[in-house]
Amino acid sequence: MEVSGTNLDEIIKNKLNPHQLKEFNKIYYGRADHCELKVKQSSSEAGKNNKFQIAAYSFLAEKETRDPRIAKIGLIQHSIVLSTEKPIEEQRQAIFNKIDKIISVAAAEDVKVLCLQETWSMPFFLCTREKDKWANFTESAEQGPSFTFLSSLAKKYQMVIISPILENDEGTWWNTAVVINEKGEFMGKHRKNHLPSIGSFSETSYYSPGNTGHPVFDTKYGKIAVNICYGRHQALNWLMFGLNGAEIVFNPAATIAEFGESFWGIEARNAAIANGYFTCSINRVGTEIFTKIDNSKVKRSYYGSTYATAPNGHRTPGLSKVNDGLLIVEMDLNLCRQVKDQWGFNMTARLDMYAQELEAVVGTK
Amino acid sequence: MEVSGTNLDEIIKNKLNPHQLKEFNKIYYGRADHCELKVKQSSSEAGKNNKFQIAAYSFLAEKETRDPRIAKIGLIQHSIVLSTEKPIEEQRQAIFNKIDKIISVAAAEDVKVLCLQETWSMPFFLCTREKDKWANFTESAEQGPSFTFLSSLAKKYQMVIISPILENDEGTWWNTAVVINEKGEFMGKHRKNHLPSIGSFSETSYYSPGNTGHPVFDTKYGKIAVNICYGRHQALNWLMFGLNGAEIVFNPAATIAEFGESFWGIEARNAAIANGYFTCSINRVGTEIFTKIDNSKVKRSYYGSTYATAPNGHRTPGLSKVNDGLLIVEMDLNLCRQVKDQWGFNMTARLDMYAQELEAVVGTK
Repeated sequence: MEVSGTNLDEIIKNKLNPHQLKEFNKIYYGRADHCELKVKQSSSEAGKNNKFQIAAYSFLAEKETRDPRIAKIGLIQHSIVLSTEKPIEEQRQAIFNKIDKIISVAAAEDVKVLCLQETWSMPFFLCTREKDKWANFTESAEQGPSFTFLSSLAKKYQMVIISPILENDEGTWWNTAVVINEKGEFMGKHRKNHLPSIGSFSETSYYSPGNTGHPVFDTKYGKIAVNICYGRHQALNWLMFGLNGAEIVFNPAATIAEFGESFWGIEARNAAIANGYFTCSINRVGTEIFTKIDNSKVKRSYYGSTYATAPNGHRTPGLSKVNDGLLIVEMDLNLCRQVKDQWGFNMTARLDMYAQELEAVVGTK
Repeated sequence: MEVSGTNLDEIIKNKLNPHQLKEFNKIYYGRADHCELKVKQSSSEAGKNNKFQIAAYSFLAEKETRDPRIAKIGLIQHSIVLSTEKPIEEQRQAIFNKIDKIISVAAAEDVKVLCLQETWSMPFFLCTREKDKWANFTESAEQGPSFTFLSSLAKKYQMVIISPILENDEGTWWNTAVVINEKGEFMGKHRKNHLPSIGSFSETSYYSPGNTGHPVFDTKYGKIAVNICYGRHQALNWLMFGLNGAEIVFNPAATIAEFGESFWGIEARNAAIANGYFTCSINRVGTEIFTKIDNSKVKRSYYGSTYATAPNGHRTPGLSKVNDGLLIVEMDLNLCRQVKDQWGFNMTARLDMYAQELEAVVGTK
């Protein structure tokens, strides 16, 4: 996180002695060392030339009877490129061009599962509470421009890609994450389960709560699920993805500092601990300005801080609060079962008791 | 937290400039300022004389149509006093004498609801996995020595007191929190819902998972519930207390550094955010050494770090990792509804969907 342009993690790193820093990291990040990975010289250069940060970390597991199951994950946070007044196709294409460069670096770093931020191919116009002017940002999950663009990259790089978009299904809108497999094929989609109705972010005036339950996608590289943005506030949403077998749950988001920035490091991390899986939290960056029909302006700034957490509660530092970035996380999926075996939260969960209690509450309310 | 005897919070406070410190506090504690309260001179002196830390903080709410509903809470963390080889009655009485002094300070500070740590009136002998030698630490919830002792203090100070003990109910043991009202009367009890079976902490060899559901006690000073120790890892446990109307949920614990110290600041804080109530996390301090039947020793050290969180995610700094302490927290219970109204997590929870999904999972597993 930056304070007047300076990263707070960096400040703490420089001001604490090594022993103090270890203790700080242990308490705040779960482990004394961040286990940073080196990236290629060519990747660093591409990051510098195209103004995006690259950071890479590793979560390893203990040696056990199974061979390691290493998944290399890429998380991209980015700002929009053009003014929101430009033609929609131009705005979208400019974002595609930016993402194309970042994904090529992810591929060079051998990333196999990549996730973009919520409604990644557009400005987050939902804060305007207006529909008409922005409607052409919505698209088909299976055939829209975002799918076509990412499908070819997924195939080219044998990469699973999660593409959170604003879906238009024959006139009905949904906030949807599309999963594209490593052959570039449509694998399935998940629609956002919980919608905020807070201040100008009244998503219920655009679309309904998702009707796709809690799907887990059994990809070539691991079992993955997507908990979209505001759904991270609901413990049961996280729980169901876990009960359905997820090893990694992505949380693509668009969230502003005024809305609980201090929650950001808590909720997805708690979910990883509680459910014995990895979580990946992605938030957009940059400032977006919209002109409404009455000519008034709406301005929103997003704080990035993309990070990942392992099932043992260890987390990576966050990406920048203001710059585009690619977070690469190497994770051994064996850690999921290892942590469950160590802690036994799944074994002691008493789900039968809760199914009954919840049924009773629902029946009376 | 202390590093080689020095408090890490203090180190950070001294090394960051005021602007950086504000940003640090905002991210890690939820607010730039800790809103510390002054305690009386006589309380400070009593703390010094009796070697316990006193810290006091405030969580206020916005002005609204209702009058403020201020609850002043006291949380006590403490070490045992005598060797575990001494007669059990002496060990217990020595702890009573220590707690008596701390509660008198809490009363002088106008604390109205007080909670002690898990199995507060004994060493946490459960790590020995032996029963016979320690059986006399168990007691009746309604008539045992802990109840008798605290009942008189509750009445004397018009204070609600939560007394987590090892209950002996006609030969059957339970890990139980007893709630005593401000008249010194037994108000009810809650038995620990989730039991760890980790390493030497195999609680299932002592007692069964609780059979009291998720009671909320409507005390004179607010609606309270108790989530005992390991139950903090279960999101549904927290959820049910919230659905049943809790405004403050206490988490009395006995937890050691090897067991996820980095979780400590995450789980209860997440629960406060997710459920729109205050959480109070209490952990014992000090090192306890036990001699087993085969003369081998078992040694366990607890890390304290007692803290409280408001429904908006703001948290207090933690108490010491090594010293006895009294944490006083002034909280306006109006904040619970205010945060719910702001965020709408309760309104968007879709409990009917989860009751169905959970029922389906339970039915097939």
